Amino acid sequence: MFDIEKIKIKPLCMQAMDAAREHLDDLVKPIGALGGMEELAVRLAGITGVVKGDYSKRAVLVFAADNGIWDEGISPVPQEVTAAQTLNILNGLAGVSVLCRWANAGLRVVDVGIKAPILHPFLIARKVCKGTASIAQGPAMTRQQALEAMQTGFDQAQELIRGGVRLLGIGEMGICNTATSAAVLCALTGAQVTRAVGKGAGVDEAAFQKKRACVARALEVNKPDPQDPIGVLAKVGGLDIAAMAGAYIACGVNGIPAVVDGYISIVAALAACRLLPELRDYLIASHRSFEPGYALAVEALGLRPMIHLDMRLGEGSGCPLAFAVIDAAMAVMREMGTFSQGNIDAGSLVDIRE
Amino acid sequence: MFDIEKIKIKPLCMQAMDAAREHLDDLVKPIGALGGMEELAVRLAGITGVVKGDYSKRAVLVFAADNGIWDEGISPVPQEVTAAQTLNILNGLAGVSVLCRWANAGLRVVDVGIKAPILHPFLIARKVCKGTASIAQGPAMTRQQALEAMQTGFDQAQELIRGGVRLLGIGEMGICNTATSAAVLCALTGAQVTRAVGKGAGVDEAAFQKKRACVARALEVNKPDPQDPIGVLAKVGGLDIAAMAGAYIACGVNGIPAVVDGYISIVAALAACRLLPELRDYLIASHRSFEPGYALAVEALGLRPMIHLDMRLGEGSGCPLAFAVIDAAMAVMREMGTFSQGNIDAGSLVDIRE
Repeated sequence: MFDIEKIKIKPLCMQAMDAAREHLDDLVKPIGALGGMEELAVRLAGITGVVKGDYSKRAVLVFAADNGIWDEGISPVPQEVTAAQTLNILNGLAGVSVLCRWANAGLRVVDVGIKAPILHPFLIARKVCKGTASIAQGPAMTRQQALEAMQTGFDQAQELIRGGVRLLGIGEMGICNTATSAAVLCALTGAQVTRAVGKGAGVDEAAFQKKRACVARALEVNKPDPQDPIGVLAKVGGLDIAAMAGAYIACGVNGIPAVVDGYISIVAALAACRLLPELRDYLIASHRSFEPGYALAVEALGLRPMIHLDMRLGEGSGCPLAFAVIDAAMAVMREMGTFSQGNIDAGSLVDIRE
Repeated sequence: MFDIEKIKIKPLCMQAMDAAREHLDDLVKPIGALGGMEELAVRLAGITGVVKGDYSKRAVLVFAADNGIWDEGISPVPQEVTAAQTLNILNGLAGVSVLCRWANAGLRVVDVGIKAPILHPFLIARKVCKGTASIAQGPAMTRQQALEAMQTGFDQAQELIRGGVRLLGIGEMGICNTATSAAVLCALTGAQVTRAVGKGAGVDEAAFQKKRACVARALEVNKPDPQDPIGVLAKVGGLDIAAMAGAYIACGVNGIPAVVDGYISIVAALAACRLLPELRDYLIASHRSFEPGYALAVEALGLRPMIHLDMRLGEGSGCPLAFAVIDAAMAVMREMGTFSQGNIDAGSLVDIRE
């Protein structure tokens, strides 16, 4: 079973980071003029130990699961949509499917707890249980189940990495997982429920108030201990969030950059980092989710999302956009001219001066 | 000569925008969940009249020119760097060169006023004059020269469009053009010099204070009239900024989306929109420049940059990143499944239910 005590994440490779910074400062541009793209290149070097890494083998790993809090009537979306949209993802029709194709990224979808029966030739069936219990009534799952989901996430990510993936985005599908994410965020950070709960995939005002009340009740009923992140995930989280946390950890352990999607992804990342603070340096925030709680979580992690498009789709759909920015940063690292090659020496003008 | 009175820019095609919105709302996702990517797709439809447009033929158009304000000692960078870096761009070594290759975009570089003699087989030589005069002493150029630069920008953009380009990014190269941009921004909007002037490519504190003082002096000496944007460009602008304004206008006239790069680009876009307010709808803000004045200009235009990477390189280097996001948005438009195809109907689950 998943044993966090046995997991070690190495600090970033300072030598590679220094080499990357040195190379960037030699490129034909003012020092630091590419801003966050340079920081990205430096961090990728630190994560992988390679200054001009190859991130062409990449994938998005999607964990799908249902949440018992749906029973409280906080969402107008039928719970069956978790399964239906998981099939859409698998059939290449969903946002993340299209964007993965666009970014030449693989896509792996894992059922860690979809309530409905679901079969698909590409679906990895690792159901821990048929959805969680309502966090507004008691714990979402047992601690054992949370550990199992984390182990599943870890194993799935590690399998991809062993298969050659060098850049991994983490996504999810699960109706009501913005509610569980809000509960986890509040439990971990002490954030106010009013700030952490958004309208998710779209609820009306009445359902929104009910959603807030349910998240508040979940915290009251379960009394999650912020010092025990696994307990937080078990009590007020979801199987998807737990699996995602495990997947992030696998990236850290294996020295692979992990791209964070939106709200659920960043909350899962925060939970993982509460267990293993060194993991934070392996995370790349892709886009700033429209969900209000996202800002709280990303700030708690000290990360800065690159893409601001007010997206709130989930599925890992923001990850392929970050893959593109990473490609751009690596093109810069590989292809820009350098001062040490003499490209911007005024001497290069002499032969064409009148 | 450039005659703004004769130029007409059509309002966006509402029919295509409605059709794009209708299609987006039919995709297998919550309404509006792709946020700014959806708005982008709708606006592109409005600009071109095509719901699922083809933006694979695209280019960045770079205008290079020198600025007389350099003589005031506000930059530690030698003025010859304008020519040297223009050669680097042409030789494929600069940031914009690399990023255009990465994004499968063409690159055209136009000399509208580099002070030094410069020759390169790919350089389009359209020098209006050998750099401007110092705006801290008097007008940068004559009104006639500003109009000539605008016409050059217009013609260059139109030539690319007639050659098949369907998406155009506008960039620049010119030492001290963050200073002229600040002056134009202040002249057009009444913004305070302290808010509009940043450190550009990197100046020390003493040079920074001098830069601010020079911009303030430029406004005092020239008394640009905000109601006369061409006069503003002539008095406190630069040949690059004027040419860029002309290029944006050509995009509007021809119904082509124009991608705005950073600070200088957004100021040129603002000047163009003061002449032709309808042009604003044809502009796509790529990235939020680190230069503090950028935020003022982008707000004045009511645009929202997609990429937040604190870049401050110029050259048009942010445009290829926006091209990638546009590609992603078009992949979504073309490839996502639709509700009307029945993809997310719970009925699709029936046959696999236990």
